[in-house]
Amino acid sequence: MRGAILHAPGDVRFEERADPAIVEPTDAIVRTVAACVCGSDLWPYRGFNKIREPRPIGHEYVGIVEEVGGEVSTVKPGEFVVGGFLFSDNTCPHCQGGFHSACANGGGYDGCQAEYIRIPQADGTLLATPEPPPDDLVPSLLALSDVMATGWFAAVSAGVEPGMTAVVVGDGAVGLCGVIAASQLGAERVIAMSRHEQRRKLALEFGATELVSERGDDGIAKIKDLTDGVGADAVLECVGTGESMLQALRSTRPGGMVGYVGVPHGVELPVKEMFFNLVGLRGGPAPVRRFLPDLMDRVWERRIDPGQVFDLELPLEQVADAYRAMDQREAIKVLLRP
Amino acid sequence: MRGAILHAPGDVRFEERADPAIVEPTDAIVRTVAACVCGSDLWPYRGFNKIREPRPIGHEYVGIVEEVGGEVSTVKPGEFVVGGFLFSDNTCPHCQGGFHSACANGGGYDGCQAEYIRIPQADGTLLATPEPPPDDLVPSLLALSDVMATGWFAAVSAGVEPGMTAVVVGDGAVGLCGVIAASQLGAERVIAMSRHEQRRKLALEFGATELVSERGDDGIAKIKDLTDGVGADAVLECVGTGESMLQALRSTRPGGMVGYVGVPHGVELPVKEMFFNLVGLRGGPAPVRRFLPDLMDRVWERRIDPGQVFDLELPLEQVADAYRAMDQREAIKVLLRP
Repeated sequence: MRGAILHAPGDVRFEERADPAIVEPTDAIVRTVAACVCGSDLWPYRGFNKIREPRPIGHEYVGIVEEVGGEVSTVKPGEFVVGGFLFSDNTCPHCQGGFHSACANGGGYDGCQAEYIRIPQADGTLLATPEPPPDDLVPSLLALSDVMATGWFAAVSAGVEPGMTAVVVGDGAVGLCGVIAASQLGAERVIAMSRHEQRRKLALEFGATELVSERGDDGIAKIKDLTDGVGADAVLECVGTGESMLQALRSTRPGGMVGYVGVPHGVELPVKEMFFNLVGLRGGPAPVRRFLPDLMDRVWERRIDPGQVFDLELPLEQVADAYRAMDQREAIKVLLRP
Repeated sequence: MRGAILHAPGDVRFEERADPAIVEPTDAIVRTVAACVCGSDLWPYRGFNKIREPRPIGHEYVGIVEEVGGEVSTVKPGEFVVGGFLFSDNTCPHCQGGFHSACANGGGYDGCQAEYIRIPQADGTLLATPEPPPDDLVPSLLALSDVMATGWFAAVSAGVEPGMTAVVVGDGAVGLCGVIAASQLGAERVIAMSRHEQRRKLALEFGATELVSERGDDGIAKIKDLTDGVGADAVLECVGTGESMLQALRSTRPGGMVGYVGVPHGVELPVKEMFFNLVGLRGGPAPVRRFLPDLMDRVWERRIDPGQVFDLELPLEQVADAYRAMDQREAIKVLLRP
């Protein structure tokens, strides 16, 4: 089969790789129907994370089950499945507690921007659709693999509840999905911080009630202004930089929470300020499997349409072009089909 | 009247001061029945906070209302009252949101280790007992002014719920009250981290189900050991040092929360570790007024007895001795009576 290999910063190649095979009886092999490039893939692509040797890349996928190991019981060959960006057993204490991203027997895949993928812990990771999906639902189902579940986790971590005012920092795919999440969870006001026309438009479609184009101190002042000086009840930090984190913390009202899902890069938390302002912080890698059944229902019933974050579709073999487009912000998120 | 003045590190004097008077119509004057020394008073006493000029000190009190301004309606002269360590109007958006310690019209007192105290925003700050309290309830009522409410806030911030395993880091008065709080909030296991015989004994009386004497990495390993490698559901950080914070964060299970109430001194938050371990953080100065009605009921009905944290009682005029005793850890907390 063929799959994407990251060789060096800026150097992704679609190459011949060994076909994946069942290794453990809990494994499944999935034939990829669609994959995509994640904002977090851009960190190593941009050289922020060390690349010691060429390695397979990508962690989002939907596909058809090709083969399962002897102990797999919840999915079977031929079914269309979605899995989260990490695999998990769904039975360990952390999974039982709802935090599959800390699964005692979980981990990452050997590259999902590929024609076939080995899924360890298939029962605890994959969820099959009720029937083969219509083609137009594929992008939204693919979004559940990471960005939609991650945006959802940001909203849950920020404690969004009906009637609240939520602010979303970050207008990438995760931030935009965070807008969907905050809206679906009943926030009365969803303020999206974005200055890009296309993303602002999508935020409004996704349920944003207000848009703020200012950033940094001006953005914080604007949020305070829009909330009678109080600050937002819940803030979704969907970027992961020091600047975005400060913007999030300082837009939050006393007693409010920041839900953060962007992998922190260069973030220093101002602990005294957080303490005296009574602003809490909670988040991390999203426990996709916890939200997957509910989110799949919402997509299946067409109550949400997160697939709109894909504004470019390319053949999987052009994965290098997908990285370039996202790196240069020519696309929000690129969908890849074998 | 006379009151305590902090002149320099280690130098507290009980001196003649001007009698406080009604300044605003929302003020009350309280005649002190009991006051005390707080762990946080020790920060400036020990020279960790700059002392620019001599200043009144102390922020915990119970007393008898002596006089009220024209707009005060919920307390009247002669009533026995408790107030939190900050005053608050109980009506601004932050108070209405339950975070009185961020009150838009709140602030600190002009020293409460004194014979009389001016209480701004009396209606939003003070709560009267149903009738004059029996003398043996005075210590527990005094504890509501700060340490019991602060321990309660630590437990609430850590998200303690029935059936959980809670860990309390810190065996000072706040930590010990945190044990009461975690127990009252229904934690099935309350693990108190303490190596001092007298405090361990009190922790057990207050509802601790287990004690851990190890600290640092050994303490963390012990907590992991006691929780089958999972970590605690909720951790109360009741100290405020870098070491205690790391101990708290690393004792928490993925998805768990650290509730922190010790003013941070030298704390650096390991954000990447918190992110990947999915450990949240929430806290700050306790919104005493929010918890005061409930906590007063619990004391009045003798369901809790936080007054036991006072293991030394001195005349108010010996306030300097009280600081010395607490500084040298000869006393957990000193009660002062005029």
